Amino acid sequence: MKLPKKVTIKEVGPRDGLQNEPQQVGTENKAAWINRLSESGLSYIEVTSFVHPKWIPQLADAADVLSSIKRKPGITYAALVPNRQGLKRALESNVDEVSVFMSASEAHNKNNINKTIAETLPVLQEVVSEAKAAGKTVRGYLSTVIACPYEGAVPPEQVKKVAAQLFNMGIDELSLGETIGVAVPTEVERLLEVLLPEFAADRLAMHFHDTRGTALANISKSLEMGITTFDSALGGLGGCPYAKGASGNAATEDLLYMLDAMGIETGVRMEGLIEAGELMESILGKPLNSRQMDIYRRVEKE
Amino acid sequence: MKLPKKVTIKEVGPRDGLQNEPQQVGTENKAAWINRLSESGLSYIEVTSFVHPKWIPQLADAADVLSSIKRKPGITYAALVPNRQGLKRALESNVDEVSVFMSASEAHNKNNINKTIAETLPVLQEVVSEAKAAGKTVRGYLSTVIACPYEGAVPPEQVKKVAAQLFNMGIDELSLGETIGVAVPTEVERLLEVLLPEFAADRLAMHFHDTRGTALANISKSLEMGITTFDSALGGLGGCPYAKGASGNAATEDLLYMLDAMGIETGVRMEGLIEAGELMESILGKPLNSRQMDIYRRVEKE
Repeated sequence: MKLPKKVTIKEVGPRDGLQNEPQQVGTENKAAWINRLSESGLSYIEVTSFVHPKWIPQLADAADVLSSIKRKPGITYAALVPNRQGLKRALESNVDEVSVFMSASEAHNKNNINKTIAETLPVLQEVVSEAKAAGKTVRGYLSTVIACPYEGAVPPEQVKKVAAQLFNMGIDELSLGETIGVAVPTEVERLLEVLLPEFAADRLAMHFHDTRGTALANISKSLEMGITTFDSALGGLGGCPYAKGASGNAATEDLLYMLDAMGIETGVRMEGLIEAGELMESILGKPLNSRQMDIYRRVEKE
Repeated sequence: MKLPKKVTIKEVGPRDGLQNEPQQVGTENKAAWINRLSESGLSYIEVTSFVHPKWIPQLADAADVLSSIKRKPGITYAALVPNRQGLKRALESNVDEVSVFMSASEAHNKNNINKTIAETLPVLQEVVSEAKAAGKTVRGYLSTVIACPYEGAVPPEQVKKVAAQLFNMGIDELSLGETIGVAVPTEVERLLEVLLPEFAADRLAMHFHDTRGTALANISKSLEMGITTFDSALGGLGGCPYAKGASGNAATEDLLYMLDAMGIETGVRMEGLIEAGELMESILGKPLNSRQMDIYRRVEKE
């Protein structure tokens, strides 16, 4: 296997994880958790979202979170923004990077943003241009890159088309979201075979959900294809709140285990992640859903 | 990805799963479960072990299980045997295939069988010869093929050496056991690169535990290397009984999901596995540990 020497793990738990948690986590607890994450060696943490609180009440305290955390030099603290209003709030909070988002499939885009893809593009263009003018880097999130919950399989050519439109806007990096966690390595390979001739591997990130247990298999295939940036959430946060054990994002600590064992450098310390995981378990009052946390709890017991 | 068109899934839950379950499952329940598994399209079920009941009380009813199940034509019903005494009992129960077992690492072999590797070989040779003379096919299990809990990393050359000795005895197939669930795809590739020039891919099976969530990633890599037989246990049974969620074997239904999505034929029906999983959940009185069962429970709830 030809693998990259270094990989960047982008921690999305405070945003993509907590926005799907049924329970409210207080601002102080969020800040304490993010501070703990900052001590683990992570270089990127997506801390919150400036989406209207009506849509995601769990993240209504976006500005307070950003003013409460202790920013560690060298770490990029990012936030999601849906539109210019969101961007304005994000800039007031002085985030390091903003993320814009849309879907590769019409039905999911419509359902999630209440706009067609064509209607979404100019809105994002404004955000990207203003953010760049304000000196910020911009990340794009593209959802449903393998499959859409409403339309089924999404053709790689469709993903390429929307990805090109996002890069043309001026985004610095595109995170390809496998939103519903159905993908297998063959599909990841097919997608990347279409995208990689068009876009540099170091400007793409893969964002897998582990709903069917295939996240690490998909990441392994992505690594072989040359991808060097992966999104994940501590403790696999971000699962469906209605199903015990239904996993959400790839768990950061399980991803780190695999990368470490593959001899790939990340700069992240497992011990630091476990400490952040312990804190989050005590905040949520329940065990996090990852193999490394399971193992840690077992060892503690013995 | 160059993948095989067809794969054989060997269900080891009734043996490798139940031998690690802290609770006793009655003979009638085992038989009902195995009968349900027989209806799912599986072609191979390892139903029990003729190891001395002192060591594995959970499987003390080996003969009763074999006489209680309804054998479906076309399915191989196999059992583990440690020695000639075990083989005698297995032959009296008219199993279709017997499995012998040992470890690639000295320390694990000693700990598990209380013999050195050199002392184990003649014992297995007797079993293999007698089983073959009785007209049975014989499967070999080789444990700790990537790592040993006592010795750490196990060199692929050591695995090759013991594997050759087992094939020289006359075994028909060798199952390579990643006993402690630490492997990542790079290590699987390194092992198979050493073994495949020596042994035909269709005489090797991979047996992964999912302790660190890497089982499907390892299976995906094995498929690319040409392996067409995989061991798994329904519901990921076989985990450490002391840790909630600490997974054991690769879960059959999660493996099937990936193979189905890759377009690989197995003959196994997901619905049949889910039905067998439901039965086992009611027998054990607890949820099984697989993503497909999680998803099934969630859908049921909605």
